[in-house]
Amino acid sequence: MQRKLVHEAAGQRVYVAVLESGDEVSECLQRLAEEESLTAAQVTAIGAFRDATLAFFDWESKAYEEIPVDEQVEVLSLNGDIALDEYDRPKLHLHTVLGRRDGSTIGGHLMGAHVRPTLEVVITESPAFLRRVHDPNSGLALIRMDASLV
Amino acid sequence: MQRKLVHEAAGQRVYVAVLESGDEVSECLQRLAEEESLTAAQVTAIGAFRDATLAFFDWESKAYEEIPVDEQVEVLSLNGDIALDEYDRPKLHLHTVLGRRDGSTIGGHLMGAHVRPTLEVVITESPAFLRRVHDPNSGLALIRMDASLV
Amino acid sequence: MQRKLVHEAAGQRVYVAVLESGDEVSECLQRLAEEESLTAAQVTAIGAFRDATLAFFDWESKAYEEIPVDEQVEVLSLNGDIALDEYDRPKLHLHTVLGRRDGSTIGGHLMGAHVRPTLEVVITESPAFLRRVHDPNSGLALIRMDASLV
Repeated sequence: MQRKLVHEAAGQRVYVAVLESGDEVSECLQRLAEEESLTAAQVTAIGAFRDATLAFFDWESKAYEEIPVDEQVEVLSLNGDIALDEYDRPKLHLHTVLGRRDGSTIGGHLMGAHVRPTLEVVITESPAFLRRVHDPNSGLALIRMDASLV
Repeated sequence: MQRKLVHEAAGQRVYVAVLESGDEVSECLQRLAEEESLTAAQVTAIGAFRDATLAFFDWESKAYEEIPVDEQVEVLSLNGDIALDEYDRPKLHLHTVLGRRDGSTIGGHLMGAHVRPTLEVVITESPAFLRRVHDPNSGLALIRMDASLV
Repeated sequence: MQRKLVHEAAGQRVYVAVLESGDEVSECLQRLAEEESLTAAQVTAIGAFRDATLAFFDWESKAYEEIPVDEQVEVLSLNGDIALDEYDRPKLHLHTVLGRRDGSTIGGHLMGAHVRPTLEVVITESPAFLRRVHDPNSGLALIRMDASLV
């Protein structure tokens, strides 16, 4: 993974990260988030994966069901955010739509994926804190503004 | 719906809004747009819906055909903008791609949807006016720059 | 195509472009990128096409396979970037997800498309240079930070 700070003003920072063949997306972006101390960021990317693990959150069981993708796919959209967890560590939340050879699509919550040959990521960090807090109704860590002190 | 202004500089404002179970997306974002006097904003979001109404604009009849989605779905992408209508009110224009349990996707123009359990929205407002004007060829209100005075 | 600079501060510029029926997307955005001397931009859009040519990059043959779309479709997402090629010309890289009348989707690398009736584009230019360099492993021009001097 290469990266570059392409804009910085009034506390807002914009990074471009370029991942390479074999890079694992979650690991790379988690490392970037920790090294750059991201606390409230928006993420978007395009590129291609050689494989991916997606997931669907089942509302009845309150668990993620995995959806394996074992083929080369285009990354048609990859959107999400980075906020702090309850231990002040940056936590990624990413959703993606992938495209197959015939143009058909498959998508879900992104658990992990291997890049091939490139993933071009733009990360826009705001001068704020967003914090996730365990939500007893869903079992998920959701962003709570009353826990997100500036 | 909770919301927070996470960045403001040189007239640009970035809001994060977090919608909760049962919130209706169009109502919430319309209220936010009116209360914050948004006039030229970009919108992006991820999360999940318990149901949604999408639509396809039929070019022959010049009408939206509704596509009901009556199941829990992941919001894989939700993109669009907020501009002023001919009466100076903010008007949302949103498109979305939704993901089912098996990773298959369905998408369209977003008419409305109920959140479950969360929708994480980023809204970037620019210090400008964008205005929609009725277009006789399509029957739609399209953004016109000559009607969008700063 | 109409366009407007809606925000400019500290070297960051945000443009809104509105394409009209019959406009070809790649031509319009290439012209905008050249006229505005874009060197490191993020692109996002929604709207509708009357036809499009998508593509899938085949890793074995190292070639793009075309996927023709010969029907009116909603543009559900259109994401990508503009960087400089080896000859200092701006080069578009765009991926899209399109929606059919029944809500089914088709997506890929965007080769070209004709708008009908509108495409609403937001382009955010950063005060930096991103440069693509030929990558012998993939045969593609990939963004390389060591070739992207500020």
